[in-house]
Amino acid sequence: MPKNAFYAQSGGVTAVINATACGVIETARAHPQEIGTVYAGAHGILGALQEELIDTAEESAETIAALRHTPAGAFGSARYKLKGLEENRAQYERLIEVFRAHDIGYFFYNGGGDSQDTAHKVSRLGEHLGYPITCIGIPKTVDNDLPGTDSCPGFGSVAKYIAVATREAGLDVASMARTSTKVFILETMGRHAGWIAAASALAREEEGDPPHVILLPEVPFEQQRFLERVRASVERFGYCVVVVSEGVRTADGGFLSDQGSRDAFGHVQLGGVAPVVAAMVKEGLGYKYHYAIADYLQRAARHIASATDVEQAYAMGRAAVELALAGRNAVMPTIVRESDEPYRWRVGEAALEDVANVEASMPAEYIDDSGFFVTEACLRYLRPLIAGEDYPPYVNGLPAYARLRRRLVEKRLPAFEA
Amino acid sequence: MPKNAFYAQSGGVTAVINATACGVIETARAHPQEIGTVYAGAHGILGALQEELIDTAEESAETIAALRHTPAGAFGSARYKLKGLEENRAQYERLIEVFRAHDIGYFFYNGGGDSQDTAHKVSRLGEHLGYPITCIGIPKTVDNDLPGTDSCPGFGSVAKYIAVATREAGLDVASMARTSTKVFILETMGRHAGWIAAASALAREEEGDPPHVILLPEVPFEQQRFLERVRASVERFGYCVVVVSEGVRTADGGFLSDQGSRDAFGHVQLGGVAPVVAAMVKEGLGYKYHYAIADYLQRAARHIASATDVEQAYAMGRAAVELALAGRNAVMPTIVRESDEPYRWRVGEAALEDVANVEASMPAEYIDDSGFFVTEACLRYLRPLIAGEDYPPYVNGLPAYARLRRRLVEKRLPAFEA
Repeated sequence: MPKNAFYAQSGGVTAVINATACGVIETARAHPQEIGTVYAGAHGILGALQEELIDTAEESAETIAALRHTPAGAFGSARYKLKGLEENRAQYERLIEVFRAHDIGYFFYNGGGDSQDTAHKVSRLGEHLGYPITCIGIPKTVDNDLPGTDSCPGFGSVAKYIAVATREAGLDVASMARTSTKVFILETMGRHAGWIAAASALAREEEGDPPHVILLPEVPFEQQRFLERVRASVERFGYCVVVVSEGVRTADGGFLSDQGSRDAFGHVQLGGVAPVVAAMVKEGLGYKYHYAIADYLQRAARHIASATDVEQAYAMGRAAVELALAGRNAVMPTIVRESDEPYRWRVGEAALEDVANVEASMPAEYIDDSGFFVTEACLRYLRPLIAGEDYPPYVNGLPAYARLRRRLVEKRLPAFEA
Repeated sequence: MPKNAFYAQSGGVTAVINATACGVIETARAHPQEIGTVYAGAHGILGALQEELIDTAEESAETIAALRHTPAGAFGSARYKLKGLEENRAQYERLIEVFRAHDIGYFFYNGGGDSQDTAHKVSRLGEHLGYPITCIGIPKTVDNDLPGTDSCPGFGSVAKYIAVATREAGLDVASMARTSTKVFILETMGRHAGWIAAASALAREEEGDPPHVILLPEVPFEQQRFLERVRASVERFGYCVVVVSEGVRTADGGFLSDQGSRDAFGHVQLGGVAPVVAAMVKEGLGYKYHYAIADYLQRAARHIASATDVEQAYAMGRAAVELALAGRNAVMPTIVRESDEPYRWRVGEAALEDVANVEASMPAEYIDDSGFFVTEACLRYLRPLIAGEDYPPYVNGLPAYARLRRRLVEKRLPAFEA
């Protein structure tokens, strides 16, 4: 009898993580001699700890195929990091216990650096406990901060969303600036790395096109230099589009957003750097402003996903299963770039121990001397990642996303307090 | 010699106002015996007052065709309301003077209620001053608040954007809610009418689908009832998606956003009702929240425009010229709905004096008894307006929007202080 597989989604979801799930499940289904049923964790790894396993065999081929064009985490994801082996060995043992109870021989963990670390630990513990399990990490993160892979599935689509939004909102502001808003601020995700905000630069084709200022977490914020740049843009082009990463910090290392507004109860409002920047612009320059906070809209925007990203997300899922079938263990499939233009890439492989808990940052040479824009090298890197459109089907004017049955497998073990 | 035409965009721009411009210019070009050159006002009516007339004859047929898929105001718009005839007769006389200097016999004014009022006044004054001019208003507003027309070009696309965003972000929150964000708040435009927020209801297909709560300006906000509704949604479905119109008011008539956060300088922050609602949720229920403020992204989002809206925006532009050629004056083409399902509509006509300065509001029977959702009658009205996709062409992963030359006609008059 072939062993079953366990697949889980981890951390913040993306527009294409379900395309990876689709790649895993479709590829597994194509190998019934080697892989039994794919069980998906309900809410990620919690599904394994709590023995809440979604039986993907209950989903039709059409539903699984529809995952390719469905955003967010169809099985539920979780922000839940397993503690260290020493601190909480019981959790890891529970995982192995659940895997054993359901005859699971393959563990596919779809997430960022933390998840690769967990997959790595499970692989080592399995051996130690006499229940060897094939552990394959699958890359996913909008933050593009995984090492060992040229880019991360999820990033290309959020990059495309931000570039499109910058171009469109930029046209709006340009047309109104004479009598109304002169400064528009778009806040993007990116707590530690500026990749997402940097992608807005793709919207610029000609001198004077938006964005005019990009504020990156990598560059300590200097209010006076920023205001001078905004003023210069308004004086020269009539308006200014600022794209600001939520993770921008001041010279003392604090988040700029923490200096910000207080709510009705006097509490500092988190997650809003745009209003802080807007207030500076109004106070320092007197310009009328507007701001947008894209928040989840950016990472859920499957309707404007990058076709390259969708293809790679699917390919990572398929490759994960193929690596497992080839007897590889404790590895993660990667994207290897072979050339920028024409863009060529292939599937590679990285050892989980090299990927786990390492954060890849944006290279210094991708930021220009002013600190307010990116370099041509950065644009060359980014361009292929947003290439191509991959529209979901529409019904009644709205994207028709997959609806799963999410039937749970019957439990075989006593409850466990995660 | 045929008379020239003047076309101007007015007020907040939309994803499809340029489709209307395209309809005006293409139709005028098809009638060279009756209409000479179409001059577009640089920044709306200011272009006429300051004699800054963009010569659209300098734009190629391809560029004009591309306006159909280009968002925002290609010639520049303006938030500029002409004063009353008595207060500032000089402005109206200047308009007539500029029209006379450039042999302009047709005035097409593309905007909301204020603009229809201006077009109406110009038409009366022209007669009075012995320079009769054909004045045609063309409807445009994302707020859907013009009377006499079943819907307004611009609204269908923002409605589609908000419905898509609600569905996508809703899937995101649903997949994360077990361990992370439980309440997501999406702030929409709509200072006076709840149409845009109401459109989010289209995202719901089945019981439990988002949105779970819609906050409309038409319904006085009651904090306790709101929090109870949020709690019930979280308890029942695991999460809650709230769509809030920027124009929501408390029982005393003040904007809810004004009760909100203060910036770093102690000023009340405008345009942010989402953080106010979020703070209430956190304070009153303790749930983790996220919020998005779509701002200009929603009305500039040509990439996800409604095909119905694009078609109607173009049709209004074409009809405006056809009405002028048929000798009509001081009228506005309208959208007349003939049936909901299948959706059938035709072009109608309204007198500017009936449209000017009248604000159409959302019918009371479109809001359900709870005040937190819309009725089936409302959905029946909304559904056809978001139907169909009309994707712009893409180059290098980004929408290829029209770039105009915007060459100004030589001035023939002394400067005028607008």
